[in-house]
Formats: sequence, structure tokens, C-alpha cells
Amino acid sequence: MSILRSISVLAIAIGFASTSAIGQDGPSLTAGQARTVDRLIDNGLEDDVAYDVLRSLTTEIGPRMGGSDNEVRARDWGVAKLKKLGFKNVRIETFEMPYWARVSESAEILSPFPQALTITALGQSPSTPEGGVTAEVVRFATLLDLQAAPMGSLEGKIAFVDGDMARTQDGSGYGLAVQKRSQAAVAAGERGAMAALIRSVGTDSHRMPHTGSSVRGGATLGPIPSAALSAPDADQLARALDIADGSVTIKLDIQVEWRETTTSGNVIGEIPGASDEIIVIGGHLDSWDLGTGAVDDGAGVAITTAAAKLVGDLRGKPKRTIRVVMWGAEEVGLHGARAYAEQHADEIERHVLASESDFGAGPIYQLDTLFGDAALPKATPMANALRRLSIAPGNNNAFGGPDVLPIKALGVPVVTLRQSGWDYFDLHHTADDTLDKVDIDDLRQNVAAWAAMIYMASEMDGDFRGTESASE
Amino acid sequence: MSILRSISVLAIAIGFASTSAIGQDGPSLTAGQARTVDRLIDNGLEDDVAYDVLRSLTTEIGPRMGGSDNEVRARDWGVAKLKKLGFKNVRIETFEMPYWARVSESAEILSPFPQALTITALGQSPSTPEGGVTAEVVRFATLLDLQAAPMGSLEGKIAFVDGDMARTQDGSGYGLAVQKRSQAAVAAGERGAMAALIRSVGTDSHRMPHTGSSVRGGATLGPIPSAALSAPDADQLARALDIADGSVTIKLDIQVEWRETTTSGNVIGEIPGASDEIIVIGGHLDSWDLGTGAVDDGAGVAITTAAAKLVGDLRGKPKRTIRVVMWGAEEVGLHGARAYAEQHADEIERHVLASESDFGAGPIYQLDTLFGDAALPKATPMANALRRLSIAPGNNNAFGGPDVLPIKALGVPVVTLRQSGWDYFDLHHTADDTLDKVDIDDLRQNVAAWAAMIYMASEMDGDFRGTESASE
Repeated sequence: MSILRSISVLAIAIGFASTSAIGQDGPSLTAGQARTVDRLIDNGLEDDVAYDVLRSLTTEIGPRMGGSDNEVRARDWGVAKLKKLGFKNVRIETFEMPYWARVSESAEILSPFPQALTITALGQSPSTPEGGVTAEVVRFATLLDLQAAPMGSLEGKIAFVDGDMARTQDGSGYGLAVQKRSQAAVAAGERGAMAALIRSVGTDSHRMPHTGSSVRGGATLGPIPSAALSAPDADQLARALDIADGSVTIKLDIQVEWRETTTSGNVIGEIPGASDEIIVIGGHLDSWDLGTGAVDDGAGVAITTAAAKLVGDLRGKPKRTIRVVMWGAEEVGLHGARAYAEQHADEIERHVLASESDFGAGPIYQLDTLFGDAALPKATPMANALRRLSIAPGNNNAFGGPDVLPIKALGVPVVTLRQSGWDYFDLHHTADDTLDKVDIDDLRQNVAAWAAMIYMASEMDGDFRGTESASE
Repeated sequence: MSILRSISVLAIAIGFASTSAIGQDGPSLTAGQARTVDRLIDNGLEDDVAYDVLRSLTTEIGPRMGGSDNEVRARDWGVAKLKKLGFKNVRIETFEMPYWARVSESAEILSPFPQALTITALGQSPSTPEGGVTAEVVRFATLLDLQAAPMGSLEGKIAFVDGDMARTQDGSGYGLAVQKRSQAAVAAGERGAMAALIRSVGTDSHRMPHTGSSVRGGATLGPIPSAALSAPDADQLARALDIADGSVTIKLDIQVEWRETTTSGNVIGEIPGASDEIIVIGGHLDSWDLGTGAVDDGAGVAITTAAAKLVGDLRGKPKRTIRVVMWGAEEVGLHGARAYAEQHADEIERHVLASESDFGAGPIYQLDTLFGDAALPKATPMANALRRLSIAPGNNNAFGGPDVLPIKALGVPVVTLRQSGWDYFDLHHTADDTLDKVDIDDLRQNVAAWAAMIYMASEMDGDFRGTESASE
């Protein structure tokens, strides 16, 4: 998940944002619908498809950077997997984007305490000159401290922006902590620095740095080379500066590849519905290069694919089409999300609901919606049906997921099945994002909730915009 | 800690091993001694010296492989630190040893699922031919399965020995799991393999492989190149083999440096006693190269140094000399331990007691001794005094610590203040062995127990061999 980009898109979102809560009154499901929902939940809780999909993707493809050869292989994998699972209209919708790739990266303290530091380049970082840069380090406790430094004060220096991230269930610590990932290089570069280092944006204390985009939208290279230190290495550098009275020289060498354009794509498959209305769900197919993208976002791909298949396995067509999208190139700039919104502009009005699963593989604890006020009562039967899964009714200010932000901005209602993210930022964008971190029972709870949710969204009368549905 | 070597030394240990437990009857401390013990414990529980020593060593020196330039810097650091803390007779006792160093290492699956694997070369691994070796992988679920394979059956292959390690408080899972670290390359080489991979000997599931010696005693290079996969990578390789019906080709490239001889040394400092009898305590100064050796074994160095200083800070000399040894080159073959036993052969009889702290920084939960039967009652007042620290009386079959094994084999009584090792093998021999993993309150509990123990061992009448002490 790239909330960095998401925040900027969110700021321009139009529509019917509301903070009112999902209530207890609303239309009821029919007895038949209620029985089907319960069966979907039962089946979800015994589902093996999601784990099999996730195991296959993370093992057979592994890392899959947006625009990379491995993402090409991932798209072919996605097409084959969706067809094998019985999806219809399976296709790849391609788009162009710039391509950034890590080639090599290293850092070391040269004096006074020579030793290697564990770093990883941030996405869109430019290369250092060949052979690296050698300079004294200037530490800033927070991004604000760097931004308060005088212009020109970092000439010939490397800036180091420290600062922890708070561990929270809902991931709210990320919004503050992630600011330095894009802003450190900008502010340090403006002040003359040769490069910027940040403490990783994460909640763990392992020698595994967290990468992530440093440029919103990912369309250009950053202003100066930038990299993240693992938390223990950030501690170490801060201690070294403390002991050495601020006089620590390091060497930083980052080499990257950058191409103005390459091809990526969204992989799409459908459970065709009886009407021409569409419910869009999915996860993003790309991952960062360090791990195998199990929690970010193989899990989202697997959960939504398995959930749609459960609905597709029901007798008879759903009322609305369930469209699963495996978005391409999310991490490096929401390229797939924006391409989808452009390529499907003529059918946006037929998009009844959208939602992405992109917050790991933890259990869902809350249903949020973003419905028109007149449609908000329809959230009640959804929320009531999910109580079995210990999912609470939430608010009507749902995020929706990064890849649905462009269509949300065009007025498409969204829901979020909020997952516990307590451990998510231990793994996020690190080499440690691997299959062993996923609990199959948590995955099944997700599948059950998603299957029930999309089934109800498909079968309910009227739409969620709060206006008359085209199908009525 | 290198239990690998320890086990073989233990097997030749002579003396008075006994499994009888420490009882409740024995001599009493004098009222003055009891008051001093309580004061030492009080002071230990507020100690800052151990953490300062550990912070200084891990930050200012960082990784410090036996025989490396960084170990030279560590010895100079040790001399300066001991002098500054008031130790006497501070010196370096040098010895010669072979030198092995990691230069570069990489592994990747070439087909059918191209992706990098995270590995680290095992100590004493020879280099692969330049450019690496490319071969099909053959997996063995356990070392026994590899050892049961026919001779010649691995010609042109790379062997992969899988197998988990059990998490236990006392570290007992290590004995079984570590066998593959030395034996995999031997057995695979005998069967014609080009290289051997093992699942890391550890209990974590992070992308951080565990290194460690592959040759007992570290005097030669291993028979074929060998490396450890991190646990998630071992999982990944096993899954890839499963999905690909056993047909997975990998490329492994390991380049190392090997020199027949280099200089290392033990750093020694003393709290001089009133008699010529000696109590030897300490930890090992060297670490593996991947981490900064905070838990293995900076903690042991720090705990024993701080404890000895607390005794040195008492009014008047202790009855016996407290000798702190920062052993060199433990990890790569117990070179410092053996050098100490040789260089101090003429005063072994004056060694009243020996003990090393080398099992991390967890709290102590048990006192074990290895005393002569006639001296076993003297363990009782020791154990009773430590109950305040939630330390239970244990058995009379103490291990003593790897670096005291050679003098234990010569008849020197030992004790072990057993630390909880529940998390120790998450960190052991990995890049993650860093200062942030150490809890200062646990460190203080260790200092308190060690200070009390060595004070009592110093002041008690008679020796622990169960014969008359030379001082009486």
C-alpha cells in the first residue's frame, strides 16, 4: 500500500464524505439472501483458495516491481489463475509508466567508528555519482527540524532525518511518519545536501530497512539520492553522532536504473452479473522488490479473488458483475489505478461500489462505508451480517483502498473492510514481507467477510450513491 | 556462543561431573558477608556500567570477527575501558590463529521461478569458483536423510538440508539443530555435491540468515562451500521444489578470504585479591561479522566487567583475585580459550572458580555449579543469596561457558548463572544482534547476580574442588 500517493489523491476526492456512523436501522435481507450470506461465511471460513493463490503468487513469481519483467510474469500468472478459477472476460489492460529499479546500495561509517550500515534506497532515488558520496552526517530529530534549518546549511553534507513511527491498529501512525519519505530529500536538497537518509518508516526493530516511494505519483526522479536506514542502524548512527560529538563521516553509494517509459497493466476477471452494473474489488499485483509481497499486497489479491469465486460458485448469476482487478504498479505511483479510471471513464456510472483489500492479512474488525446519505441505511444489513465475524459497524467515511481512489474521486461509493494493522508496519516494504507472516485463519476470516459483503452489495435493491439505480 | 566447538571439548572434560542438585543445607555467610551481598545486589540492580560498556563496544567497534582489524580495535577498546574502570594488571595476551572472512555472497533461483534468495556463508566455507556454481537443488528434510543418501548421488548438485530448531528456554534445541552446520557440507561433499545449503540454525522467521562455524576448531576450510538460508528463504526453496516437482536450479556465489595465520588476543584485567587465588570470569570479545555482537557476547563482557567493578568498589581487597577475561576469537574456534589454558597452565591450580557469561542478555533463572562433592554444600549460601533475584538452585553439572571449557577440562570448578534463552536464537549470529535487543533491567539483574556470586566465591573458606584450598 502506498498511502503516500493516496493522501494526495484523497485530498482532491469529491463526493459525499460523511462521518456519521453506520446505524442499526435499515432494510433487511430476504430470508434467502440471509441464508446465502451465512453459507458464504461458512465457506469462507473453510476457504483454501486464498491461501493457495497467495502461496502460488509469492513462490512462483516472488518480488514483482511495477514495470519489471517479474510484473510481466505476474500478469501472465494472474490471467492463468483467474481462468483456472472460472472467471470470465479475463484480460490484461496495459498502460505506460516510468520505470525505476534498484541496482546496488551500500552505506558505511568511515570515521570514527568504521562499520557497515544497513540501508535501502527509496523508490525514485537517483544514483549517487559512481563510487558514492562521502560526507559528514547531520542528524535531525524530526522532519520539521530539517525544514527549519537555514538554506545552504547542508552544503556538502548528508542529512539524516530520524523519528519513530507509532504502532497503531488502524495504521494511523503511518500518515505522520511517512512524510519524511518524500519530504526529507526535498528539504535536504534545498539546503544543499548531497543525499538524505531517513529512519525507516516502520514499527519493527530489525535490520531490515523499509523502502517506498519518495516521489508522489512516481513520474520523476527525486531531487537528491535518498535511502532508509533500518531502525537498529538509525539507532546506531544516532549513538555514533552522540559519542563523536556530531562528527561522523559516512559513505553512501546508490546505483539505480531509470527509464522514462515501460509497460505495466491491470489484470481483470469477472463473475458476470445479470445487469450491466459493476462491483469492483481487488488488490494490487505489484510489490516492492525486497520481499515477495505476501502481505502487501498478495493477500489482497488472494482474498478478493477467493471471495469473488465463492460468489461465482453460487447457483445462478449475481445481480451485478463482480469485477476483480489485480492493479498494476500501485507502489510506484498508483499508475494502474489512474489507468483504470481513464480506461473505464465511460462506465463509471455503472460502478455501483468499489473496494480494495490492501492492508495486509490481519483480521477485519470494522466495516466502513462511503455511501450517499440516503443510501446509508443499506450499510446496516451488511454490518449486521458481518457481526458473526467480530466485525463492528464503523463510520461513513471509508478510505476504500489506494487503487480505488481515482474512481472514488469520480463519485463511486466505496467500503473498507478494515483489517488490524498492528503488525503490518513491521513488514511493510521490507524483505520480511513473506508468506510465513500470513495466518491462514485470518485470511479465511477476510474471505468470508468479503464474500458476504460483495454478495449483499450485488443483491441489494437500489444503489449506494443515494440516487435511483440504473437497474431499477 | 559457539556450542558447536563446546560440545566436542565437553566430551573430553575430566573432573567431577555430578547431576546432584544444589541442596538447602550448607555453610552460612557471616553477617557482614550477607550485608555486603545484599548491598552488591542493590547496587547491581541500579548499575549503569554494564549498559554503558555494551553501548560503547557495540557502537564504537561494532562487528568484530576473530582475527579481524576490528577485533584489534576491540582489544584496544577493552584495555582502555578496563583501565578507566579501575582494573589492574590490564593487558593483552596474544595468540596466533587462522583467519576467515566473508567477501561476498549471493544466491538466486534461476529456474523455474527466478528470484533472489537471502543467504549467508557459514564460517570456514571455501569460495565457490569465481562466478559461482549453478546446479539443481536436492532437498533433505533432515541431516540424517542426507547422511543416508548413497555415495555419488549428489554429483553436480547442491544439497539443501532443511529442518527446524525447537524454541526452548535453556537453549537445548540448539544441540540438535546445529549439527547440520558442520555436518551438511561434510556429508554432501562426500556424496559429490558442489555446495551445501542449510536452513538457518535459529528460531526466528525473518529474512536474516544465521552464520556460524562449519568446522570444529576452525583450523581448516570446510570441504565444500556452505551457506545458511534465512528461515523464510528455506520455506520458499522448499515450496519451489514442491511446486516444480523437485526441479529447481539455483546459482550460488560465495567469495571468502582465508589466511593460515593472524594474531588475536585475550584482554585481561583484574581486581587484585589478598591471596594468589584466582576467580576467572568474562565474556568473549569477538563477534560474528553480521551484527554488532550485543547479545553474543557484548552482554557477557559488559555484565562480568560491571560485576567485577562492583566488587572492586568495596572497601578492602577481595580475598581472591577477580580476573576478567575478554576472550578473543571464540566464535571461530575457541582460539582464545585454548590459548588461555596453555598460557596459564602453570597457575591452573590457583584457579578457584571459572565462569563465562555467553548466552545473551536475558534474565538469570538458575544457578548451576560443578563443584567437587565435598564442596557442594558451599553452593547453598550462594543459591540462597540469589533467591532475591528469582534465581533457583540448580544442578551440579554446570556447563560453565564455552571459553572456560579448556580449564574446566583441567579440573577448574565452574558455575553457570543460567539465562533465559527463549529469544536468544532469534538473534544469534545474525545481523539483528544489536543493542536495541537488550533490556537494561535484565542486564542489571545479571550484574547483581554476578557481583554477588563472585564476591561469595571470593570470600568463602576452602575451595570448590572439594579439597583443601591452598590459601587455608
